[in-house]
Amino acid sequence: MSFGNNKKGPKPEIPRQAVYRLSVYLRCLNRLNANGIQTVSSRALAGAAGVKPTQLRKDLTYFGQFGTRGLGYDVSQLTQMISNVLGTEKLQPVVMIGVGNLGLALLSYRGFEQEGFEIVAAFDIDPKRQRNKQIKQLILPMTQLASYVKAHSVKMAILCLPAEAAQETGNFLIDQGITGILNFAPIVLQVPETVMVNNVNLAIELENLSYFIQEDSPEPSTRKSDASVSR
Amino acid sequence: MSFGNNKKGPKPEIPRQAVYRLSVYLRCLNRLNANGIQTVSSRALAGAAGVKPTQLRKDLTYFGQFGTRGLGYDVSQLTQMISNVLGTEKLQPVVMIGVGNLGLALLSYRGFEQEGFEIVAAFDIDPKRQRNKQIKQLILPMTQLASYVKAHSVKMAILCLPAEAAQETGNFLIDQGITGILNFAPIVLQVPETVMVNNVNLAIELENLSYFIQEDSPEPSTRKSDASVSR
Repeated sequence: MSFGNNKKGPKPEIPRQAVYRLSVYLRCLNRLNANGIQTVSSRALAGAAGVKPTQLRKDLTYFGQFGTRGLGYDVSQLTQMISNVLGTEKLQPVVMIGVGNLGLALLSYRGFEQEGFEIVAAFDIDPKRQRNKQIKQLILPMTQLASYVKAHSVKMAILCLPAEAAQETGNFLIDQGITGILNFAPIVLQVPETVMVNNVNLAIELENLSYFIQEDSPEPSTRKSDASVSR
Repeated sequence: MSFGNNKKGPKPEIPRQAVYRLSVYLRCLNRLNANGIQTVSSRALAGAAGVKPTQLRKDLTYFGQFGTRGLGYDVSQLTQMISNVLGTEKLQPVVMIGVGNLGLALLSYRGFEQEGFEIVAAFDIDPKRQRNKQIKQLILPMTQLASYVKAHSVKMAILCLPAEAAQETGNFLIDQGITGILNFAPIVLQVPETVMVNNVNLAIELENLSYFIQEDSPEPSTRKSDASVSR
């Protein structure tokens, strides 16, 4: 299997956590590249990513990448391979659904574009409501979602809605061809097999910390193995 | 073991994912309570939380809560028990470290307080820099962090810094007595055993979706078992 070109062949079934780790490796490689480093050993790259070298090598073999024994990995080649696998080699359009406090906050966050994602438009049931902040994206009514998503080939949405509106709107998004949802609503969305949902709940992350930092709390039992992201 | 009062006894060692699920159960219970529902079966609560009933029952037995066979769980009692276990029964102070785009965005997000957390102050190396948004919290210089954290008994921090500044600042926070860090910086923080870090990287969440929604991508192998939050 080759990933040195832009054609995408069928991929093996790999665990979700391995895909998260690829994102971490990519960021480590970007820092190496910024520092002018051209090759990296699996030990050094694994150390920067907070995983064991055996984990790194296993993750990369899912994609047919083995490195050259004794020479380590070529930084730019491995960067290109991972970007290609993740589908982030070109800027991907994303729509924001729900422009309340959190949606508005995220619309003004510039970090997504640096990483290959552009929030191209925002949708809200009340697009004309006065908001306390200037943003560059248009806020459109939900009635324009279907045509917009189709015209701009949008596959990904960020859902920033209250719990009670999230499922219904999620169903609507899926009907319009959205297949990836980053869900900030505090509910478990019911979606078909063909749709992927990643959940982010910042209050739950704080609550989880709150449990573990209580003075009589034991060490979290899974902490050591939890060197990846987003938990 | 009893959790019906405010005294906290030593807790058993429980998996991190079970603590995340407690947060989900708590939100489901809050919705039941808002709808005037006083008791709930394990099947119904598990369904709302997107887990199997056996999983729910197992998670609750970590805390010595078994319900009454045939009667289900008392909604308010279970709510109080879980809040107590999570340590969120009173508003917890949190400091924001780094007031760039993302930090500023999160400072204006009102969702934390509803869930028991108050961002009491923000710290930045350049507190006087012009920012495009009014926020209610004071932005203080990092030199005031130590005295502030001590005076207000703050144990939790949200770290919104670039990768290159995060580790050094993280070390400093830990020296000041911070034991829980919600880390938005795209690096793996190295921390002592006594400190808990939860990582959130929104770009990585999008990147992960991006992989799975590619047309030649297989079904994610772990999806079905991944009904909890924050991945």
